[in-house]
Amino acid sequence: MNEIRPIEWANGTLRLIDQTRLPSEEVIVEANGYLEAVNAIKSMQVRGAPAIGVTAAYAVAMAARDSNIEDKPTFMQCLTEAGVTIKAARPTAVNLMWAVDRMIGIAESQPDPASIKERLLAEAISIEKEDEIINRRMGENGKDLIPEGGSVLTHCNAGALATAAFGTAVGVIRANWEDGKRFNVFNTETRPFLQGARLTAWEFKKLGIPSTLVVDSAAGMLMRRGEIGCVITGADRIAANGDTANKIGTYSLAVLAKENGIPFYVAAPISTVDLSLNNGDQIEIEERSSDEVTDFRGVQIAPIGVEAFNPGFDVTPARYVSAIITEAGIVRPPFKENLNLAVKSAQ
Amino acid sequence: MNEIRPIEWANGTLRLIDQTRLPSEEVIVEANGYLEAVNAIKSMQVRGAPAIGVTAAYAVAMAARDSNIEDKPTFMQCLTEAGVTIKAARPTAVNLMWAVDRMIGIAESQPDPASIKERLLAEAISIEKEDEIINRRMGENGKDLIPEGGSVLTHCNAGALATAAFGTAVGVIRANWEDGKRFNVFNTETRPFLQGARLTAWEFKKLGIPSTLVVDSAAGMLMRRGEIGCVITGADRIAANGDTANKIGTYSLAVLAKENGIPFYVAAPISTVDLSLNNGDQIEIEERSSDEVTDFRGVQIAPIGVEAFNPGFDVTPARYVSAIITEAGIVRPPFKENLNLAVKSAQ
Repeated sequence: MNEIRPIEWANGTLRLIDQTRLPSEEVIVEANGYLEAVNAIKSMQVRGAPAIGVTAAYAVAMAARDSNIEDKPTFMQCLTEAGVTIKAARPTAVNLMWAVDRMIGIAESQPDPASIKERLLAEAISIEKEDEIINRRMGENGKDLIPEGGSVLTHCNAGALATAAFGTAVGVIRANWEDGKRFNVFNTETRPFLQGARLTAWEFKKLGIPSTLVVDSAAGMLMRRGEIGCVITGADRIAANGDTANKIGTYSLAVLAKENGIPFYVAAPISTVDLSLNNGDQIEIEERSSDEVTDFRGVQIAPIGVEAFNPGFDVTPARYVSAIITEAGIVRPPFKENLNLAVKSAQ
Repeated sequence: MNEIRPIEWANGTLRLIDQTRLPSEEVIVEANGYLEAVNAIKSMQVRGAPAIGVTAAYAVAMAARDSNIEDKPTFMQCLTEAGVTIKAARPTAVNLMWAVDRMIGIAESQPDPASIKERLLAEAISIEKEDEIINRRMGENGKDLIPEGGSVLTHCNAGALATAAFGTAVGVIRANWEDGKRFNVFNTETRPFLQGARLTAWEFKKLGIPSTLVVDSAAGMLMRRGEIGCVITGADRIAANGDTANKIGTYSLAVLAKENGIPFYVAAPISTVDLSLNNGDQIEIEERSSDEVTDFRGVQIAPIGVEAFNPGFDVTPARYVSAIITEAGIVRPPFKENLNLAVKSAQ
């Protein structure tokens, strides 16, 4: 199968599938320096926590590459500053911070700018490669979650496009499908950015997995009718107690799943776990522009002057999460203990 | 204040505000015969359970007016057939069936086609007038539900546009506002038809009530944050036990409200109560075209070939409903007994 890879490093340039233009156009945007990579993250040409992490790693490598400073302390000062700018591109997904910190750590361990430059590019490439390996392992770990003849709902896009390849939540669904089982797949459109309608539906089509699109608010009705066997979403940040930040609407799906006795799974790499936060209330939630709700592709939908509140994410308290599928295994409650163990085992 | 009246009978023509084109254009469409009125209902140029009821009443009056049959039995046969066509325009809102049945009953009581024609037009006009009176009474009955400094969320459009005038859920919010209290108002955009973003936001603007728009899936997060004091929606049909069919997404809001200890109110005229149905599972739920989800104003959003499941409504079990605000008073659980009493008191 022709794997979807939204991020490609080629000839010193970061090539990204422009996710704002899918599915109607498949366009590649190039980032030739770290600020261009930051802009691609900000404008959501690249999105999804793991994909943002990989992009950030290449951004740090480009910031190093493009520096002409020759003494290490000054070089590191500038690189650290570039890292701060990269981290500020979006606030909620912790993979961004994780990737930058990992890259800066590597840089510090090197003797001079020349070796830093070389080592950082190698590290970005391995972060990208690792991400695919991690996702495939997550799929393997979650491949018994959907039974033959069952059904699954996913939200937003936690597919290959949200990662280096293979995807997290969509990866788990794919692994179940490739195991030979057949089941019904539903995905939400995911307002306002329509990652579900535009990106996840496109991925399922490429994978040959039949899926049915629904508006976000129809998921509850499907659950009540018994048409959803389980829910699987990705995550942007998971606090030490298992509270999970993910795309706006995830909390609602988790509450509805619990109310209807349906398991609610989160699929995320260990790099999404932020042990520095005790609980989800400490996760910064990005508020995006009102226009994303009031307009559609430049066409005003709501009356002029109407303001929208547009949070990009919400926090699902751990009590609604049945299990977290990671590359280190399926983590079940009590999350405080078990996430801690999983993080250690992945180190 | 310049009241919003979506339906006007003038010079033998039914004039409707075309709700598919609001808020960008305020266009009047004219229905000069009952089939044109049926088409306006089908295409959602007029929508909202009470407004559909009023339109249906005028449609029956026009069907009678335009008949050339002179003997009463044949006239009634044709009129009844027209009534069946009108009832079939949309399946979920019971007000449509209620209005047609009331009109046919009136027709039967008249001696001949000439008096039927005259009496039916008078009856349609009084159904329209009654609707406004009922809504204002509902507002009066619900005017203590929102406290000073509180907050309220509404879904879809249950405003003047969904009725003859004043609105049901929006009418209750308006009555609280006109009582001099100030509070925060949130309304959902209501995918896929965007009745909230397009119509409710437009009405709140006309009323001078500041409101904040959110995507449907952000409502849960607002509730969890303590920013919603109560939820008020309209209804398309209420079964004898209180189970309530309303715009898709209402069930989700009701579950989220319960989970967060927030009262969930339904505002609906007694004509919305269908005592012939024991529970909500017996309510027919309209499934609308996949295109409403996959396309936006003729522009394809989802990949070509992707199918959407597009239910227009869902059913909220009575256990999630705190109270039903009617013109006959606020009906509280146990609904089976109290709805029955309210229906009797309104007769």
